[in-house]
Amino acid sequence: MNRKGILIVVSGFSGVGKGTLMKCLTERYGHYALSISATTRPPRKGEEDGREYFFKTKEEFEQLIKEERLIEYACYCGNYYGTPCDYVEDQMEQGRDVILEIELQGALKVRQKYPEALLLFVMPPDAQTLLSRLQTRGTETEDVIRARLERAVEESQDVEKYDYMIINDDLEQSVEKLHSLIESQHYKMSRNLDFVRQIRKEIKELAKGE
Amino acid sequence: MNRKGILIVVSGFSGVGKGTLMKCLTERYGHYALSISATTRPPRKGEEDGREYFFKTKEEFEQLIKEERLIEYACYCGNYYGTPCDYVEDQMEQGRDVILEIELQGALKVRQKYPEALLLFVMPPDAQTLLSRLQTRGTETEDVIRARLERAVEESQDVEKYDYMIINDDLEQSVEKLHSLIESQHYKMSRNLDFVRQIRKEIKELAKGE
Repeated sequence: MNRKGILIVVSGFSGVGKGTLMKCLTERYGHYALSISATTRPPRKGEEDGREYFFKTKEEFEQLIKEERLIEYACYCGNYYGTPCDYVEDQMEQGRDVILEIELQGALKVRQKYPEALLLFVMPPDAQTLLSRLQTRGTETEDVIRARLERAVEESQDVEKYDYMIINDDLEQSVEKLHSLIESQHYKMSRNLDFVRQIRKEIKELAKGE
Repeated sequence: MNRKGILIVVSGFSGVGKGTLMKCLTERYGHYALSISATTRPPRKGEEDGREYFFKTKEEFEQLIKEERLIEYACYCGNYYGTPCDYVEDQMEQGRDVILEIELQGALKVRQKYPEALLLFVMPPDAQTLLSRLQTRGTETEDVIRARLERAVEESQDVEKYDYMIINDDLEQSVEKLHSLIESQHYKMSRNLDFVRQIRKEIKELAKGE
């Protein structure tokens, strides 16, 4: 595969099922890579450096910030979390389409740095379905569910900033929709300018020569 | 189907096989419509009004121009040819994705009038294949083939203005690529703003209520 990979940012309300969707997509098609975040939080039992996260010391992380080697980063609960450029760019160079699961603020930073990135929002078919999915997780209290819905209201204010939306109704169909959508982004003219230059040159030679 | 149709402009060098491609696409999937042009040239034997063309008198055609009811038009060999808005818009309202096979000048006029239109260029895999396809038609002299290649050189100057390109290598695969590409355009955020408004309202009610 000699085509360059695409960077895809995926966001969606809590409970919309984007985790499952990404898991199915990457399992079914071998050329996707999930981006791996860097963090200063200590590894939990069973977590491996370079698999769940790139584990960094505070000094290392701040060095990455200083050298602008993070696409985006944020601080939650006293720990840094961020997306290292190197990993993402390596994967794209190898022809992998790289998926980044982050929220809007991060998504907009990605777009600044990579204007060709695809910003995608996963939607529930309707609000009631979202609520049911939050409830059937079974682990959340009424208050937590209410808080998630309120967060969803906030997030919904800005969804127009995304390029595309996929309605996650049927998982199977959503995986295929998502795959076709990403696949078709490879046909964008702006991603094929080398090909265009090449064929223009070839046709010119044929028209002159023969 | 209650989604609105998309307008798709398809261009490509002579000999690239876009006619066959469109034929296969529209035969395989029932929701595509090929746009029908209006013309002042007299019908040929076997041609039917509203099937091959909408046949118009010069006065009727000039009336359409005056009333701005053509998306684009041009004059070749003393006859007018153009694309009537009404037919295209009716089809889109009915949920059909409408395909317009025209050249760059027309394509740019379409974009002016319908900024959401999808502009697509069909490419041969390489120049040699284009030449072979022109030669195996068997009906063209060397001079005609040379002229077609020269025309292709001219057309190739502006292909960057199209949104997407499809390489027509294997017909079967190209039909599917084209279909996925058009299908995925329906997921564009800008085409789903009604859905976004609706779900935002629903989630807001759920978060408040209950």
